[in-house]
Amino acid sequence: MKNTFGNSISVTLFGESHGPAIGVVLDGLAPGIDVNEEVMADFLSKRRPSSDLDTARREEDHFQILSGVFNGKTTGTPLAIVIPNEDTRSKDYTYGPARPSHADYAAFCKYHGFEDYRGGGHFSGRLTAALVAAGGILIPALEKKGIRIETHIDSCGGISDGDFDEQIRKAAAENDSVGGTTETTITGLPRGLGEPWFDSVESQLSHILFSIGGVKGVEFGSGFALADMKGSEANDPLRINDAGDVYTETNHNGGINGGITNGMPVVFRCAIKPTASIAQDQKTIDFQKQENIDFCVNGRHDPAIIRRACPVIDSVTAIVTADLLATRYGTDYLAE
Amino acid sequence: MKNTFGNSISVTLFGESHGPAIGVVLDGLAPGIDVNEEVMADFLSKRRPSSDLDTARREEDHFQILSGVFNGKTTGTPLAIVIPNEDTRSKDYTYGPARPSHADYAAFCKYHGFEDYRGGGHFSGRLTAALVAAGGILIPALEKKGIRIETHIDSCGGISDGDFDEQIRKAAAENDSVGGTTETTITGLPRGLGEPWFDSVESQLSHILFSIGGVKGVEFGSGFALADMKGSEANDPLRINDAGDVYTETNHNGGINGGITNGMPVVFRCAIKPTASIAQDQKTIDFQKQENIDFCVNGRHDPAIIRRACPVIDSVTAIVTADLLATRYGTDYLAE
Amino acid sequence: MKNTFGNSISVTLFGESHGPAIGVVLDGLAPGIDVNEEVMADFLSKRRPSSDLDTARREEDHFQILSGVFNGKTTGTPLAIVIPNEDTRSKDYTYGPARPSHADYAAFCKYHGFEDYRGGGHFSGRLTAALVAAGGILIPALEKKGIRIETHIDSCGGISDGDFDEQIRKAAAENDSVGGTTETTITGLPRGLGEPWFDSVESQLSHILFSIGGVKGVEFGSGFALADMKGSEANDPLRINDAGDVYTETNHNGGINGGITNGMPVVFRCAIKPTASIAQDQKTIDFQKQENIDFCVNGRHDPAIIRRACPVIDSVTAIVTADLLATRYGTDYLAE
Amino acid sequence: MKNTFGNSISVTLFGESHGPAIGVVLDGLAPGIDVNEEVMADFLSKRRPSSDLDTARREEDHFQILSGVFNGKTTGTPLAIVIPNEDTRSKDYTYGPARPSHADYAAFCKYHGFEDYRGGGHFSGRLTAALVAAGGILIPALEKKGIRIETHIDSCGGISDGDFDEQIRKAAAENDSVGGTTETTITGLPRGLGEPWFDSVESQLSHILFSIGGVKGVEFGSGFALADMKGSEANDPLRINDAGDVYTETNHNGGINGGITNGMPVVFRCAIKPTASIAQDQKTIDFQKQENIDFCVNGRHDPAIIRRACPVIDSVTAIVTADLLATRYGTDYLAE
Repeated sequence: MKNTFGNSISVTLFGESHGPAIGVVLDGLAPGIDVNEEVMADFLSKRRPSSDLDTARREEDHFQILSGVFNGKTTGTPLAIVIPNEDTRSKDYTYGPARPSHADYAAFCKYHGFEDYRGGGHFSGRLTAALVAAGGILIPALEKKGIRIETHIDSCGGISDGDFDEQIRKAAAENDSVGGTTETTITGLPRGLGEPWFDSVESQLSHILFSIGGVKGVEFGSGFALADMKGSEANDPLRINDAGDVYTETNHNGGINGGITNGMPVVFRCAIKPTASIAQDQKTIDFQKQENIDFCVNGRHDPAIIRRACPVIDSVTAIVTADLLATRYGTDYLAE
Repeated sequence: MKNTFGNSISVTLFGESHGPAIGVVLDGLAPGIDVNEEVMADFLSKRRPSSDLDTARREEDHFQILSGVFNGKTTGTPLAIVIPNEDTRSKDYTYGPARPSHADYAAFCKYHGFEDYRGGGHFSGRLTAALVAAGGILIPALEKKGIRIETHIDSCGGISDGDFDEQIRKAAAENDSVGGTTETTITGLPRGLGEPWFDSVESQLSHILFSIGGVKGVEFGSGFALADMKGSEANDPLRINDAGDVYTETNHNGGINGGITNGMPVVFRCAIKPTASIAQDQKTIDFQKQENIDFCVNGRHDPAIIRRACPVIDSVTAIVTADLLATRYGTDYLAE
Repeated sequence: MKNTFGNSISVTLFGESHGPAIGVVLDGLAPGIDVNEEVMADFLSKRRPSSDLDTARREEDHFQILSGVFNGKTTGTPLAIVIPNEDTRSKDYTYGPARPSHADYAAFCKYHGFEDYRGGGHFSGRLTAALVAAGGILIPALEKKGIRIETHIDSCGGISDGDFDEQIRKAAAENDSVGGTTETTITGLPRGLGEPWFDSVESQLSHILFSIGGVKGVEFGSGFALADMKGSEANDPLRINDAGDVYTETNHNGGINGGITNGMPVVFRCAIKPTASIAQDQKTIDFQKQENIDFCVNGRHDPAIIRRACPVIDSVTAIVTADLLATRYGTDYLAE
Repeated sequence: MKNTFGNSISVTLFGESHGPAIGVVLDGLAPGIDVNEEVMADFLSKRRPSSDLDTARREEDHFQILSGVFNGKTTGTPLAIVIPNEDTRSKDYTYGPARPSHADYAAFCKYHGFEDYRGGGHFSGRLTAALVAAGGILIPALEKKGIRIETHIDSCGGISDGDFDEQIRKAAAENDSVGGTTETTITGLPRGLGEPWFDSVESQLSHILFSIGGVKGVEFGSGFALADMKGSEANDPLRINDAGDVYTETNHNGGINGGITNGMPVVFRCAIKPTASIAQDQKTIDFQKQENIDFCVNGRHDPAIIRRACPVIDSVTAIVTADLLATRYGTDYLAE
């Protein structure tokens, strides 16, 4: 299914950047999970452009829960969240020139010109707000079970430590943009989650991670660096301590062997490309007129989306994690 | 679904390394696709250990098609292929010590000791033979439609060009193993395949790629290198030529924008970890006795699986490609 | 997936009777399908209680399309429709007594008391309004392809012809309710749709039909009457006419053989139980207090839901039909 | 997915009547379920033609388990069963005339002549043997959990009690065939299984029941008879006894309210049409030559399949039941 993902817990995403609203339907949640709208709003605020480093588009992300919550707790039925689009300046967007590195041209090929082209339409990063709202419910629920998801910026603009803001400001000053990498850690996961082959933990996580616009690489544990290691370096020595806990001395496999969690932290990194929209003239085509043009993307853009990507990655990771648990332990697990 | 993957075309994988047989069921194929068992056998031979660089386990992969083929062509009903396990020396394998970097311990956590532990059981790389047999049907069918899939070794043992065999022999001499990276190109794909968000081409491909044991990283286009670029470098300039063909001057996005093909070659790289089995003493646990031990993995091993991984990657790529086409153009497409 | 159904075209349903809104997300639609809100409103009005034969609850079903439509046509991205709940008198509903033949007790067993019990919550027939809104888009699109879906009342209150309204009024006067049967015909379907076994046309249709509250039986063609026939009566003689059209002289199989359409009209009947809510004292339990009580269901009820069920059956039939076509002919089919 | 069905537990079916073998892959089973091949064989023998009332085709259904079982118990990985086709007299079958009420013509429309037409190919009732083999594992596992599935013939040839064999012999003597109805009861099910709307227990059961060739009607509880009742008759009075057990005095709803089990036995009936193959001249077409002919189906036929249908219905019911339990209580449930 195209805009729906998950097994026992599933998520359905809808909306366009400049339509009436975006939203998400979370299904399969255990009944009795706390839903705290303030926590959700706080969580959404992490994704929202807020500083001079972000796009000038300002929206409060006033979400509304339409279903699936009663007396502050999930009912177990589908939980629909909508976020109206408030600050939509459609005049900033015109149809015709394909913005390089955006979905415009590919969308035209797929949708034959019927797509809502304004602000990227259904491809807009704005839809991630709905995923983050979902994360605002799932992440606290997972934490109650001792499971923590934490994503941080690993590198930005080619710098792997130091002042990432500096990189972003410099790019902004040059009317350019920067990308980066994120690292995510999931701790507290039970051992034995996931499946061999097609529903491996890596398969399920990468599936949802690559659905986030701008993510162009995903690696687990030592990832691409593993390719350069010898087996004697890469193999994580297994140990058992006096308390009977099994662990590995290193974690090159990122907590997953054969697609299944082994009790070590699940660790993965995402490569996020630089924001496609830059205020420079770029070579592109007017795909309606079928001619080559130079084109400068107007509108309000982020010089780097990586800061705002972190809560999105946290949220989609929470969706897969909750699904893995519900599949393994049953639909009531998260609220037990 | 756990061992089934796909939308319009799906694949179901079964079998254990030392059970009676492994196999695959391909469903949703167009009726009328040529099935040439010699081509399949040739294709399987690419995956089979054959030189001194590979495991000493030798099997002919004598496959049998049980259903879905009539008079040399697909019928459109499920196509089941089984490959009996012939050369299974179960005595090489004992239960108890968890081989580091293998699925043994994780499988024990999931299956509580009921798993067939011999030779990795269901986690064995041997199951990829069934996927390759499927590839032996799909890849020629895709080629008839002008779509070519080609995977080559990009690096091995840390060397990105030169004599990969040398690296492998060196590692073998040291009772060690090496990993590497592969690069895959899909050319001839129609524009407009795939979906925004959860069924992005990247999501679907990574899902199946990460189901292959040993794959720990996947990147599309310039992947992780994109994270270090500026937007002005990373954005692929769009051009239209006199014949009216749209293309991009660079292909940092790997032929995919917003999850959808844009007509450029789809390009991705996989990181493959070094073979987990090495003939060295390693620190591990006897997870039945719950004690720390030193353990040397006996049996027959590959010092590098990367050469044999290439046809597997080709095959799973063909499965996703065929599915993308059937979803978009209907179930008869591949035989039209 | 629990509240999502379909293959190439899918539907996700959400909402509670007395929550903020109910709604539906339709995904996988071809880009370029006409969306006429007046036609949708007309279609919704068929389901709405309107005469003295229906519940006194009156709502205009003011729907809003949140996404997936641009310039009056589908974009090809998820189409979300919400219908706010306007006339919700929560005080009519109390928690405790399980209304016989309703989902109250079963829901309590499943959701442990976290369910929104007001007016049946997520189980409310009101959610069918969202399905009908979806039908208001799909049915006209199917008609453009020459495919017509038509559901009529076949029997009501045990009377298989004559004045059904009479039956309903009589039951209402007795503070009772009646059920009935519907017959649906799909004409103009291409031959060769559907699948053998699990995705047979019967399987897919019955799946969605039995999701409608109150449907307790589904039969295709002559259905249960077939069980009493001999083969020589039941077998539909196949004929070809001078124009080369193949047809059957009878249609006991309801246009489906082996799960696949044969070109004859697809015909099925649904058994709809009498409305569960009646204004009489009934034996039931207070499942919170765990005691036997006599209980009269207050609130506003339909003496018969069968009239209002017809557009719902039309709509879910349209969803499955559109999905069968998109799976077979590709995602663009309905707008080509 | 076309020949795959299920959520947490899934079944994939493959094979043709006259190909090398038929088979099934069961996935998602708990590790540690007993697999007793003698029990499976006994169960298969119930489906096998055995008396003068059945087809003269005789096969022992020698099944082989290819995977997923180790030391007599399920491993938790996909369990593949194949049943070779032994007694296949292909000469009995010719391509050209469409056997009335069979899938021949519909299959031709779908598969364009590439289908394996011999003996019904993939549509053959023979494939149900694979489902019954799966039932031979699941039914004893469910019984260990106190859940019993029991299907009996409710009517045959229009007679709802008395000597069904008599009806069958009479039809056989007339070169004709009879159908009938079956009634199935599931007892011991936990309360609260299933879902509202699309994954209602009725939806899931009817989906798999209608995939069995010959099933043309399914009704739950009082089914079509409910349509003629008044609410005051149809509503099942809820009661609680001194032990605190909740039950209903009648069971018109067949143990399911709002799609969810309520603790009462789940009861449903299937309408099974008379065997399509009869040794009489019938009007049909030669769909290759596109001309009207009279045609008598040769080969070996059952005058009634209803006796053999019972274990098939038991088995598919067991598949859905096991899936409902695993979805609700987690993947280990059946072996706990």
